[in-house]
Amino acid sequence: MTIGALPRIAIDTMGGDFGPSETIPAAIESAKSGTVAIILVGSPDLIKKELAKYSYDNLPITIIPSDGLITETTQPVQAIKKNPNASIVICNELVKRKDADAYVTMGSTGAALASSSMILGLLDNIDRPVLGGVLLECAPHSILVDAGSTIDARPSQLVNFAVLGSAFVQAFFGINNPKVALLSVGSENNKGNKQVKDTYGLLEKTNINFIGNIEGHELPFGKADVIVCDGFTGNILLKTVEGIGSVLYKELANEIGKHLPEKKANHIAEIIFKTITPADKWGGSPIFGINGIGIVGHGRHKQFGIRNAINTAKLSIDVNMIEIMENNLKRIRDKIKVNEI
Amino acid sequence: MTIGALPRIAIDTMGGDFGPSETIPAAIESAKSGTVAIILVGSPDLIKKELAKYSYDNLPITIIPSDGLITETTQPVQAIKKNPNASIVICNELVKRKDADAYVTMGSTGAALASSSMILGLLDNIDRPVLGGVLLECAPHSILVDAGSTIDARPSQLVNFAVLGSAFVQAFFGINNPKVALLSVGSENNKGNKQVKDTYGLLEKTNINFIGNIEGHELPFGKADVIVCDGFTGNILLKTVEGIGSVLYKELANEIGKHLPEKKANHIAEIIFKTITPADKWGGSPIFGINGIGIVGHGRHKQFGIRNAINTAKLSIDVNMIEIMENNLKRIRDKIKVNEI
Repeated sequence: MTIGALPRIAIDTMGGDFGPSETIPAAIESAKSGTVAIILVGSPDLIKKELAKYSYDNLPITIIPSDGLITETTQPVQAIKKNPNASIVICNELVKRKDADAYVTMGSTGAALASSSMILGLLDNIDRPVLGGVLLECAPHSILVDAGSTIDARPSQLVNFAVLGSAFVQAFFGINNPKVALLSVGSENNKGNKQVKDTYGLLEKTNINFIGNIEGHELPFGKADVIVCDGFTGNILLKTVEGIGSVLYKELANEIGKHLPEKKANHIAEIIFKTITPADKWGGSPIFGINGIGIVGHGRHKQFGIRNAINTAKLSIDVNMIEIMENNLKRIRDKIKVNEI
Repeated sequence: MTIGALPRIAIDTMGGDFGPSETIPAAIESAKSGTVAIILVGSPDLIKKELAKYSYDNLPITIIPSDGLITETTQPVQAIKKNPNASIVICNELVKRKDADAYVTMGSTGAALASSSMILGLLDNIDRPVLGGVLLECAPHSILVDAGSTIDARPSQLVNFAVLGSAFVQAFFGINNPKVALLSVGSENNKGNKQVKDTYGLLEKTNINFIGNIEGHELPFGKADVIVCDGFTGNILLKTVEGIGSVLYKELANEIGKHLPEKKANHIAEIIFKTITPADKWGGSPIFGINGIGIVGHGRHKQFGIRNAINTAKLSIDVNMIEIMENNLKRIRDKIKVNEI
């Protein structure tokens, strides 16, 4: 990033459930904030058609053409090879060439992780990219890693999640020496499945601030800054919280609506909804472990969520997230040998 | 159970976080309902001291002495051998000798599972007892199995959970040919960890009504009658829902209380709380796979939850739960060979 210039954020306009009709107005609004320069990546025809609906004169917006989109159902690595000009590929190449400081996509997640691994590369001793993020908004500085990228994770990978997650909360939330806990079924070190018990032993050897296991009912209370689990458990938990949120919102608006005017009832329902569901607030999560900044958001996000994902990208740039992650990884590797974990 | 007589339910008065001070008044209230006969198992001195606080003349209550209590932290199998007269052991022996039709304990869970396996024995081809129950009250007939008993489960064990869970929802909720789903991270059969993918293949071979994978955000909508997962994931999910419930209750009462009188606010909060947390309603869950009826409740339950656990025991007796489980297991074994699963 050029000093004094705006951070440049490449937007995968084709991604997500809604494509350009949501990504482009969100990007325009972000450009209007005066804090970021926007690079719209996508089909030039579709971008121009969408841009024509808005006024964007004098805004720091450029267009970089791409051809094709990699969707959720395809095999991402093969799809990338077949679609070398797909929007997510171009986004990553812009970051790689330092023509952008970060990219933002609303998915597919698989395509983002695979293309970032291939194009940006991974940080030292990291074998897979990882997603992490806030699970419950009532514990707003407590992040869950992995949120769904490594489904069958080895103990050494869980240790990496702990390191990368620690670096993230340090960079984003200014938490020094963050508390790391392993998600398990009991507080004692002999409670958990084999994966968790093996990881417990490894984490004790590191200089991570490991506070032991955390149980499900403790998650809303912010006991740990970083909650480590594999992508299977993490994905199920995140989606369950999302499902509970959507049911509760309706139930709340309905129940409170019996006693208060609809508008007020909806407002209260929204406050409560936000207590548990953080997805919109951050819009997306940085991919941990890649050598560059890429933010992956939820496919269902509309303008509000996408704008927040752009803010998350900007914050990641501002705090030098990659440098902090590299330093944390180095520090842990200096303390214990790579082959030990 | 003698025909025409009341079902006899043995209560482990010593179990749970509160012991006799909650179990005994709950049992008295249940006896007053006229639908069950109660056998109080515990230290005679403590039972008599507690009984003295209440009026229970002419109620169908008997006392069976026990000596000792097995708590959560001990190694259950060893603890049972060291405490052959502990309350949970006596409860199981009463059921084994047909001097009781069911037992109810508020824990420890480990002691209940271990003592029931040892004393009542397991149903044919079942190698471990399993706990299951409703996860979210907004999906009131959708049960999660395993709720925390088998932390590292093999695919063949997950198939057993599906069979036992199906039998339970058939017996309890009158659902014929219940829909069984595997908890995973995507709907396609190639989504999930190795355990889930292997189980998917096995379930397809059975005559279980297997509808494929279910994801976290679908859980509140009752898409499946039986949700199969290992005890690690199940325990974390159940406890997370519990934690979210407790946070939400406070947040709700507080937020609604800004607009409505405290009493009304608390009432609405309670309605919403119950939308997600089913624990109190059932009080406990039958142990699946044992040759007899044992209900394990949550240690923190007070009288209301304990009385509901007694109701759950009565219902299990009334619907011939064990016979239905045996028949379901036989039907599945007839279709595929044991060594195949």
